[in-house]
Amino acid sequence: MTVRFGLLGAGRIGKVHAKAVSGNASAKLVAVADAFPAAANAIAAAYGCEVRTIDAIEAAKDIDAVIICTPTDTHADLIERFARAGKAIFCEKPVDLSADRVRACLKVVQETKGKLMVGFNRRFDPHFVAVRKAIDAGKIGDVEMVTITSRDPGAPPVDYIKRSGGIFRDMTIHDFDMARFLLGEEPVSVSAHAAVLVDKEIGAAGDYDSVTVILETAKGKQCVITNSRRATYGYDQRIEVHGSKGVASAENQRPVSIEIANGDGYTRPPLHDFFMTRYTEAYAAEIESFIAAIEKGATITPNGEDGLKALELADAALQSVKEGRRITLG
Amino acid sequence: MTVRFGLLGAGRIGKVHAKAVSGNASAKLVAVADAFPAAANAIAAAYGCEVRTIDAIEAAKDIDAVIICTPTDTHADLIERFARAGKAIFCEKPVDLSADRVRACLKVVQETKGKLMVGFNRRFDPHFVAVRKAIDAGKIGDVEMVTITSRDPGAPPVDYIKRSGGIFRDMTIHDFDMARFLLGEEPVSVSAHAAVLVDKEIGAAGDYDSVTVILETAKGKQCVITNSRRATYGYDQRIEVHGSKGVASAENQRPVSIEIANGDGYTRPPLHDFFMTRYTEAYAAEIESFIAAIEKGATITPNGEDGLKALELADAALQSVKEGRRITLG
Amino acid sequence: MTVRFGLLGAGRIGKVHAKAVSGNASAKLVAVADAFPAAANAIAAAYGCEVRTIDAIEAAKDIDAVIICTPTDTHADLIERFARAGKAIFCEKPVDLSADRVRACLKVVQETKGKLMVGFNRRFDPHFVAVRKAIDAGKIGDVEMVTITSRDPGAPPVDYIKRSGGIFRDMTIHDFDMARFLLGEEPVSVSAHAAVLVDKEIGAAGDYDSVTVILETAKGKQCVITNSRRATYGYDQRIEVHGSKGVASAENQRPVSIEIANGDGYTRPPLHDFFMTRYTEAYAAEIESFIAAIEKGATITPNGEDGLKALELADAALQSVKEGRRITLG
Amino acid sequence: MTVRFGLLGAGRIGKVHAKAVSGNASAKLVAVADAFPAAANAIAAAYGCEVRTIDAIEAAKDIDAVIICTPTDTHADLIERFARAGKAIFCEKPVDLSADRVRACLKVVQETKGKLMVGFNRRFDPHFVAVRKAIDAGKIGDVEMVTITSRDPGAPPVDYIKRSGGIFRDMTIHDFDMARFLLGEEPVSVSAHAAVLVDKEIGAAGDYDSVTVILETAKGKQCVITNSRRATYGYDQRIEVHGSKGVASAENQRPVSIEIANGDGYTRPPLHDFFMTRYTEAYAAEIESFIAAIEKGATITPNGEDGLKALELADAALQSVKEGRRITLG
Repeated sequence: MTVRFGLLGAGRIGKVHAKAVSGNASAKLVAVADAFPAAANAIAAAYGCEVRTIDAIEAAKDIDAVIICTPTDTHADLIERFARAGKAIFCEKPVDLSADRVRACLKVVQETKGKLMVGFNRRFDPHFVAVRKAIDAGKIGDVEMVTITSRDPGAPPVDYIKRSGGIFRDMTIHDFDMARFLLGEEPVSVSAHAAVLVDKEIGAAGDYDSVTVILETAKGKQCVITNSRRATYGYDQRIEVHGSKGVASAENQRPVSIEIANGDGYTRPPLHDFFMTRYTEAYAAEIESFIAAIEKGATITPNGEDGLKALELADAALQSVKEGRRITLG
Repeated sequence: MTVRFGLLGAGRIGKVHAKAVSGNASAKLVAVADAFPAAANAIAAAYGCEVRTIDAIEAAKDIDAVIICTPTDTHADLIERFARAGKAIFCEKPVDLSADRVRACLKVVQETKGKLMVGFNRRFDPHFVAVRKAIDAGKIGDVEMVTITSRDPGAPPVDYIKRSGGIFRDMTIHDFDMARFLLGEEPVSVSAHAAVLVDKEIGAAGDYDSVTVILETAKGKQCVITNSRRATYGYDQRIEVHGSKGVASAENQRPVSIEIANGDGYTRPPLHDFFMTRYTEAYAAEIESFIAAIEKGATITPNGEDGLKALELADAALQSVKEGRRITLG
Repeated sequence: MTVRFGLLGAGRIGKVHAKAVSGNASAKLVAVADAFPAAANAIAAAYGCEVRTIDAIEAAKDIDAVIICTPTDTHADLIERFARAGKAIFCEKPVDLSADRVRACLKVVQETKGKLMVGFNRRFDPHFVAVRKAIDAGKIGDVEMVTITSRDPGAPPVDYIKRSGGIFRDMTIHDFDMARFLLGEEPVSVSAHAAVLVDKEIGAAGDYDSVTVILETAKGKQCVITNSRRATYGYDQRIEVHGSKGVASAENQRPVSIEIANGDGYTRPPLHDFFMTRYTEAYAAEIESFIAAIEKGATITPNGEDGLKALELADAALQSVKEGRRITLG
Repeated sequence: MTVRFGLLGAGRIGKVHAKAVSGNASAKLVAVADAFPAAANAIAAAYGCEVRTIDAIEAAKDIDAVIICTPTDTHADLIERFARAGKAIFCEKPVDLSADRVRACLKVVQETKGKLMVGFNRRFDPHFVAVRKAIDAGKIGDVEMVTITSRDPGAPPVDYIKRSGGIFRDMTIHDFDMARFLLGEEPVSVSAHAAVLVDKEIGAAGDYDSVTVILETAKGKQCVITNSRRATYGYDQRIEVHGSKGVASAENQRPVSIEIANGDGYTRPPLHDFFMTRYTEAYAAEIESFIAAIEKGATITPNGEDGLKALELADAALQSVKEGRRITLG
């Protein structure tokens, strides 16, 4: 079986997925839609697919699945439309910035027995996957404490930040998902601290750029997340999982692994400076996993529920900061 | 000038200090006191000093300074006595488990213009010192976020734990001091989570074995501390300080740095398995610093106030756990 | 301009190059030839090109360049044919196992003003390239001593070894090329030692499996190469270049960078276990470089002369072992 | 039993041994002799021993063992004198720069049933010891190939070089001993290359500053040694032992293990800049081993024969360079 795809949104991440679909022997990119014809045309030319409207893709009989890479505020509507149209759906995170809207959307997905995968790409990073496999293989015993470090090389434009839902919903949300992926148990309480240390403009926009979060599960497992919108040395992405028998950790990745030593010491180059090069393999593996799940009729992970849970943690973290107290979850 | 020492307490840590004093050209170990004559005699024999009573040491004209390594509940009383006797005092942490008692004791030290150093040995670890020097040299810009990891190879006997004041006052207190050492600004709020994941006996004794703490300063600088009473791979002691220009971190230490590679991968030996081997250099440097300060009439650091501040953070962390909320400090 | 390619040889490495050409916007794979129709058909199907005979490719007007991945003993003949046919040629190493035959072949290339690139893929590894760039940027001053370590996960079949020309011409030849790439000066003398330590069958086939070589240039720069046909921990590929101001080195590569620590120590996974995964990026960059050189009419590197020089070093190393003495080169 | 020591030579290395003896509970430093009274007096004052003449130490009834740290050209004579006087002898390497003189000296030691240990301190470095233990424990199978890297931070004064016997007898000799320590089999052939790349003055003095050596044993095991009199990044001391089952390696040591990362990359401090700080633990363990051997009447290692073998390898390496050929040993 070949899974036939429509791509909604031909921007930066849309291109990444177009390439992944085109390179997959079990998939075919049939059509692309974008509000900007030039963007859609570029992908159509590069991968030999058609340009269509979203309506046409929705109605198409030659399309089995869609990849939603449009602006965030269109995600929930599009998911609902395509779930009703019977297409399998891969949607970039987040489903929506409002948990209520996400819940309503997931209800539609459920009612239509829709297939929805949410784009938490880090679950497919080979290094993080290896940590998870080590846990599953019992290499570190029972998971007890998780440490997640995510530091971006630089802040996005303030304009983007204003529409992003804030650092917890935009950036930390990946770490909340990773925490759930690694803890093996749902967090039941959240304590968060947040400040503006990097850029006052971010503060003026009502957001934070430096945050720290503790998640705790019912059994007392703890996860610490630290985030910053600044990392001069590159894209800092580390996880460390402590268990009863040992610890498993994933190291940072750099494009070039050399070392130069002289009187000033031993120097290795900076890390990747961009999430798209850091997670190249993860983006490809993510779409492969989506295609494989559709092909086999298998369960899709991470799904809409995972998207919702991560968002609920983001909301709780923000509430914790605003109210200066620990938040207990549902 | 030679600083002449009396040693109070001839136990494990007393021996470490006896060796440090004896090996220092500017110091001389004159006498040792211990409730157990055998322990005192052993040190006297090894380092050629006298065995005396605490009273005799207090009254002695040939003693300039004392090192207090007796049980915790005697510290505050001894500090007061020796401050009044005009001796310079080095006291192992903590001054007392009660912040009120510490305050009363420090009042005496102040009134007598006493010299008091508190034994936060980690400030003298050459690796942590190097991190601090990198900060002072402007290598990482303004400090923004600190991460401190302390995991013990194993828990102390439950009997000890019962008298220890709990994990925050016994173990995390070192990290609270390190946080202050590295942040360069006092924490003003504390969020802590704690659980019993390692040993139920510890829980039965009313304590925790796995804790996570966020400290935040007035400027929004954040410090995360994670502690566990279990680390199968050795004594895990790491710090990481993120600033506006970069990050400085101190790696874990192992007694032997070899690597063996085969079909199972690349393996390096475990870390130090004991705090006394991990911090050998720190213990020696600590006493050297005390001696140098006395010789030069210089300010002593860390002092009683540092001991009090760390204890207040420990108390706040415990309160945060007990009350399930963020605690704002004085 | 689009460079139109014919691929000669549809085996393992042929597939790698077919993919690289197909993925390159400036190139097009037009045809593939192979003695085994099934192999050629597979590539034709995967990349949408034709299956043709070598004769047809030689005569084709719609083909600008060929990639020769056929058995070694056909390389020199094919190079001569395609040089005369005016096609640009990329040929897998070696041009031939006989230096005399290589010289004769290069004479034809020269007479026909042919363009010939020889497949020393390691020159295109991003890590080794970064070392070379560090040298060129003056980061380590004048190059003085080079250390190259190449250890294969396992020996090839003895049947292959018999036809391979021996370890120096088959395996070390890559290191001889790398030595020239890094030394910046031709070696003028060679001392080599060789033994059979891994597999007696290799010895029975007249070859060695464990060798050590010193190369020295006229200025006294030295390069040490160590090779083994066994490395239980994966494909060991390291270079280290010492200069007057410092040292630059390239670390080994592993597919997954995690670490697991427990009572046995800290363990990272083995290295890549196969040269094709280790050098994935290098193979792609190599063909890119070939395409770019043709497009721009630029000089091709490494060329036939580079192939010959490496072979001469291999011959000298073998002679050094056979005669138990240092060999001085031309 | 307490081993009573006389120290011959109160220079830099003499002080190191004086401290080691004084700190050892089974040993006592009784007397020190030096041509310069001030040097002897300083040690006498620091460790509470007497200053005596060499003659007096030779005749002394209260001295069991001597440590010879006098200039190299006195070593053989002193060994003979003290062997005849029935004292156990620890002598800094080398016994003599002439292998014939060493053989004559060892004959005296043998005839007098003398106990002689030669100061190859690296055998006692805890990291190298751990590699050797890993070999002995079968962790890497049968040893096949050894790589030893020794690079000094800087060259000694040319004046010293003139009297040193040359780089092979002065510097590489440590690596020759380490090669024997790790190979577990005597080398039977030597190929060496040498050049002057660091300092022309060294060349003018008839010596080399950059050398590369291959040793091969009867079974075909190979050891590669590289040496340079220059290493801007500190004292580079690495060993790597490849066996049939894997590889064991000892990493370089640095006084401070921190890392600073910023836009320029990740930088760790330089290595130790001096052999005495790099090998602090080795020097102490070496004398401990000597004392323990005397106490227990155990065999002393490394002994005079080890000193001779290393010197023979040095002589062969020099001959290899001079004659431009591989040298076969006795």
